[in-house]
Amino acid sequence: MISFENDYNTGAHPKIIEKLTMTNLEPYSGYGDDKYTKRAKEKIKKICGIKNAEVELLVGGTQTNATVISTMLNDDEGVIAVDSGHINVHEAGAIEFTGHKVLTIKGKDGKLDAKSIKKYMENFYNDRTYLHMVIPGMVYISHPTEYGTIYTKKELKEISEVCKAYKMPLYIDGARLSYGLMSKKSDISIKDIAKYADVFYIGGTKVGALFGEAVVFTKNNRPKNYITSIKKRGALLAKGRLLGIQYDTLFTDNLYFEIGRHAIDMAEELKKVFKEKKYKFYIDSPTNQQFVIMKKEKAKNLKRHVAFGVWEEYDKNHVVVRFVTTWSTTIEDINELKKYI
Amino acid sequence: MISFENDYNTGAHPKIIEKLTMTNLEPYSGYGDDKYTKRAKEKIKKICGIKNAEVELLVGGTQTNATVISTMLNDDEGVIAVDSGHINVHEAGAIEFTGHKVLTIKGKDGKLDAKSIKKYMENFYNDRTYLHMVIPGMVYISHPTEYGTIYTKKELKEISEVCKAYKMPLYIDGARLSYGLMSKKSDISIKDIAKYADVFYIGGTKVGALFGEAVVFTKNNRPKNYITSIKKRGALLAKGRLLGIQYDTLFTDNLYFEIGRHAIDMAEELKKVFKEKKYKFYIDSPTNQQFVIMKKEKAKNLKRHVAFGVWEEYDKNHVVVRFVTTWSTTIEDINELKKYI
Amino acid sequence: MISFENDYNTGAHPKIIEKLTMTNLEPYSGYGDDKYTKRAKEKIKKICGIKNAEVELLVGGTQTNATVISTMLNDDEGVIAVDSGHINVHEAGAIEFTGHKVLTIKGKDGKLDAKSIKKYMENFYNDRTYLHMVIPGMVYISHPTEYGTIYTKKELKEISEVCKAYKMPLYIDGARLSYGLMSKKSDISIKDIAKYADVFYIGGTKVGALFGEAVVFTKNNRPKNYITSIKKRGALLAKGRLLGIQYDTLFTDNLYFEIGRHAIDMAEELKKVFKEKKYKFYIDSPTNQQFVIMKKEKAKNLKRHVAFGVWEEYDKNHVVVRFVTTWSTTIEDINELKKYI
Amino acid sequence: MISFENDYNTGAHPKIIEKLTMTNLEPYSGYGDDKYTKRAKEKIKKICGIKNAEVELLVGGTQTNATVISTMLNDDEGVIAVDSGHINVHEAGAIEFTGHKVLTIKGKDGKLDAKSIKKYMENFYNDRTYLHMVIPGMVYISHPTEYGTIYTKKELKEISEVCKAYKMPLYIDGARLSYGLMSKKSDISIKDIAKYADVFYIGGTKVGALFGEAVVFTKNNRPKNYITSIKKRGALLAKGRLLGIQYDTLFTDNLYFEIGRHAIDMAEELKKVFKEKKYKFYIDSPTNQQFVIMKKEKAKNLKRHVAFGVWEEYDKNHVVVRFVTTWSTTIEDINELKKYI
Repeated sequence: MISFENDYNTGAHPKIIEKLTMTNLEPYSGYGDDKYTKRAKEKIKKICGIKNAEVELLVGGTQTNATVISTMLNDDEGVIAVDSGHINVHEAGAIEFTGHKVLTIKGKDGKLDAKSIKKYMENFYNDRTYLHMVIPGMVYISHPTEYGTIYTKKELKEISEVCKAYKMPLYIDGARLSYGLMSKKSDISIKDIAKYADVFYIGGTKVGALFGEAVVFTKNNRPKNYITSIKKRGALLAKGRLLGIQYDTLFTDNLYFEIGRHAIDMAEELKKVFKEKKYKFYIDSPTNQQFVIMKKEKAKNLKRHVAFGVWEEYDKNHVVVRFVTTWSTTIEDINELKKYI
Repeated sequence: MISFENDYNTGAHPKIIEKLTMTNLEPYSGYGDDKYTKRAKEKIKKICGIKNAEVELLVGGTQTNATVISTMLNDDEGVIAVDSGHINVHEAGAIEFTGHKVLTIKGKDGKLDAKSIKKYMENFYNDRTYLHMVIPGMVYISHPTEYGTIYTKKELKEISEVCKAYKMPLYIDGARLSYGLMSKKSDISIKDIAKYADVFYIGGTKVGALFGEAVVFTKNNRPKNYITSIKKRGALLAKGRLLGIQYDTLFTDNLYFEIGRHAIDMAEELKKVFKEKKYKFYIDSPTNQQFVIMKKEKAKNLKRHVAFGVWEEYDKNHVVVRFVTTWSTTIEDINELKKYI
Repeated sequence: MISFENDYNTGAHPKIIEKLTMTNLEPYSGYGDDKYTKRAKEKIKKICGIKNAEVELLVGGTQTNATVISTMLNDDEGVIAVDSGHINVHEAGAIEFTGHKVLTIKGKDGKLDAKSIKKYMENFYNDRTYLHMVIPGMVYISHPTEYGTIYTKKELKEISEVCKAYKMPLYIDGARLSYGLMSKKSDISIKDIAKYADVFYIGGTKVGALFGEAVVFTKNNRPKNYITSIKKRGALLAKGRLLGIQYDTLFTDNLYFEIGRHAIDMAEELKKVFKEKKYKFYIDSPTNQQFVIMKKEKAKNLKRHVAFGVWEEYDKNHVVVRFVTTWSTTIEDINELKKYI
Repeated sequence: MISFENDYNTGAHPKIIEKLTMTNLEPYSGYGDDKYTKRAKEKIKKICGIKNAEVELLVGGTQTNATVISTMLNDDEGVIAVDSGHINVHEAGAIEFTGHKVLTIKGKDGKLDAKSIKKYMENFYNDRTYLHMVIPGMVYISHPTEYGTIYTKKELKEISEVCKAYKMPLYIDGARLSYGLMSKKSDISIKDIAKYADVFYIGGTKVGALFGEAVVFTKNNRPKNYITSIKKRGALLAKGRLLGIQYDTLFTDNLYFEIGRHAIDMAEELKKVFKEKKYKFYIDSPTNQQFVIMKKEKAKNLKRHVAFGVWEEYDKNHVVVRFVTTWSTTIEDINELKKYI
């Protein structure tokens, strides 16, 4: 059965599997003390255009969000996020588990905007009781967002400026970063991300790795003894080499971006197919996640032939369904999908 | 350079790499909702001899300890461990990070004994101020221990009985379980472990997997909505299939035990070599970790040819060094080691 | 200067001061092991009409909310509250500090309603990804609410029924309980509160005590070793007698309710005075907190003569101001206020 | 019945009760925004000899320890304490509840010494795996200790020097500070405490207040927005005036030190009485806690006439019992005690 269920439904890009196989018998100390990890970190710094960036490799996205946010917030602080943000909805309370509140702002199409953040901050400090409330200490955005939308360079710059004005680091969740950067609508590069974000991560799990997320601290702001903080959260991989090898491979010959480009191309094909069949889109997404409005009956039947996600009810007769492309999506998959929709 | 540095210094057993490669393109839902995970869990239940055991697959050891302990303790409780226990020393405070205290008892050769636990509990409840102290709510032991020693069936049974008397679950950290079970000195089976422990884990990371630890709840005692609790700790792997495939492979054709047996055989050869050269052992370990007393000068020189761990100072002129065997250790490695020591 | 700033701006009701003075030299064991505490607990059980209720006396409201909520939630759970709820806004993230999320539902006039909770729960369990989200495990309401409004018996019953249907305990924050019960608009008694709530607290700090909140577990549902859990949160008062003496006094000769009645009477007078002067009310509050719309200029001048709270901006020229009555408010205070507004 | 059970078994010193009564009707904003709190803080700064010290008033000892320690430690750090330290034994895991480990060093008579701390630190940083362990980030001592013993100026200075060398703040738990300072054996003043400690607290609960502990940050090192951090821990008293009034009174006419002196005088009388009757002391305590070795039978009988604490078993026939003096202990109490022992 063909699958558009998500971007982590297959294993890893063959080049990664190949490299893991080739290096399998080489012995290394654990916990990231190996040549591949060192090399991967150097490549990431270079591609971000920040010589003294600090890079840490972790296993998963929720783990990464909880680790970064909880180690960068002060005791009195919480993190601002859009209400639909991953940390607010789909991480089972991982941020709160570390003792910090997620402060939500209503967003549009999964995005926060500078104006709303500014207004939130002004209201906050105008409230004479603000010391009895959680102090906003960081801004979290995801790029692309949970709805597949992306920020423009201008939007990013404005958000970054509000953050600076209030001395709040800006953290960008890049679980699907490659798809955002390779979107036909994108006007930003990874260097822009590195410039505007105080810390961000380059997602691997959803971009062709078996697992892995590379956190980049861009402003000499990595907390002290970070390995200890990672370990304390159960997030330190014994065979750290696995992360090093994967990121070394992803940043060899532009693989990370090639994977993104391919998935975007497939997403464009996918859109075409749905448009031909007169489907309406729930949201105009320029990345690898496509949200389509489908008759309930149709969705039910389609499930027999294709794996995809049912997102939410749209109206009495329709549901919003999600189709996702990734490195392993083929044009054949899309042609076959076409038969059933 | 040959390496006896630890049991996670190489990749995965070739059969695991092979299986990961073969299944790489098969699409599955994430988070353990795949056929390999289901099959792995069934195999584990069968080998433990407990039909209705509940099995959860996690990524790493510290993560597993923190997840199991913090979800099984009541709010008022802490976990008893030997002072040298992994959770007390080398997990960067991961248990405390979840809000619970590690209550230590002085041990011998890395082991706890039933008598000491009993005495601890009697003293505790005889103290009229005990409600102002952390209530002991679980006992943690590792098998084999951090010093490579193992429990006998009688010792395990006695500890289990004290635990039952005080209604404390017994949790066995089996990071290196296979090496304990396959030790020439062992009189216990995995079924014994499953019988005496209320919850334990079958370590994969140190026994031939890329990563992975299989937690087994043996008494219908898995907390509710465990996926949520795992996710909340950042411990839920998106591509859960990777854990399923690895454990399915480890429990096919006895691979898990074969790996243990091989490492034990290699450890016996290693011991021979050191004994021939008149080295003294710091501890009499019947498993894959061997602690040898070595002249400081010698250890320093040996580092040029062999990777191994310097454990601690023994006296002014000697250090304790650790040599570890694993699935990838070969007789050639040991023959080469012989040249240098 | 006269003050309507809040209901904790003076010391304690004279009867409490008197009793503390009289008992000052009597020696007692600490931590609530004294005859006054025992007696207070018995009186509370009696007045609640629940023989085997379990009562715990704590110092402050935020402390009480955090202790009750975090000890009653399972690991995977969070607490539902109205967006304006005290735990969501004005407790500096005390709930999140214990590792649990506050799940918000938009309310009206500070109140939650059964229908909204039901809809939230239905949507939650209809979402196929719900195990990746925080499981709703408790419902928190305050009575009266942060806006001075109160629930009717019917509303309370309906909320209680939804809670039961989803096996979520209902927790009522009674920081100002007396004012709710003694409101002219109230159709509920403390026995009703005890019947519908699974746990609630009878606020002392805001009702004439120096400090103190009495938690009542109504369904044999107090977690084990509660003293340990209280101590662990730094919430166990050494001289527990102080809580016992205060609650014993509050529940002697109906003092707790007399204080409420007096404050309500004063609030009604206060309303009259504002109405005479043609002020508009921001909200129709039947309790001791009154929210009035006032010209900014007026509010600024009034500050010179009267202490009160500026709540929030109403429009360009107006602010919402809060006037609060309490046990120490006198008719003279109100007459004097009349001169200035 | 006379009581030597502890130093918090009666109410407050009459001067405090008097002041609370006198000020009862004065209205103040809550949370410490009142003239008494301001005045108390000024007096404390003056008596400590540190103009720009920062003072915070909290309610109880465990609460204070948990708040101070958890807000001053970095994420990767734990706190060093002697094994018998209050935070390690009798606070129900309050430090661990905040996510930090208590790192213990074996002490003598309840005291830590500079040499042991130094050795601990050297061993720690010599261990190549130290990043996998909890980083020592603070030293906690209590003065007097839990056994009534005190540090000399020299000892304090040495400990302070080790702390400085390793950049660890030194925190002194002064729950019974007055008794330490007024001990006949003491060679240190409160100014010495303020000089050597980076943060310490002046205990009120056990020195004549109803409750209250005054934290002094001596090195411009109070964390930001401390009210928020206090509130987040449920430790912010609504009627903050109560703390202000009590500390203002304690530091008027040397009351705080007079209370200490009186209790020490009474303790000396108590010692005489026991010595006359040939009792042996378990420990040589120069403060208000006296530990006496008593026949079990005797202790049992004595309980009928006198309240005191049974500390621990000494041998088959004897127990260690504790007698404590305080502001309310009278010479008549001691004379009566004499009759029964």
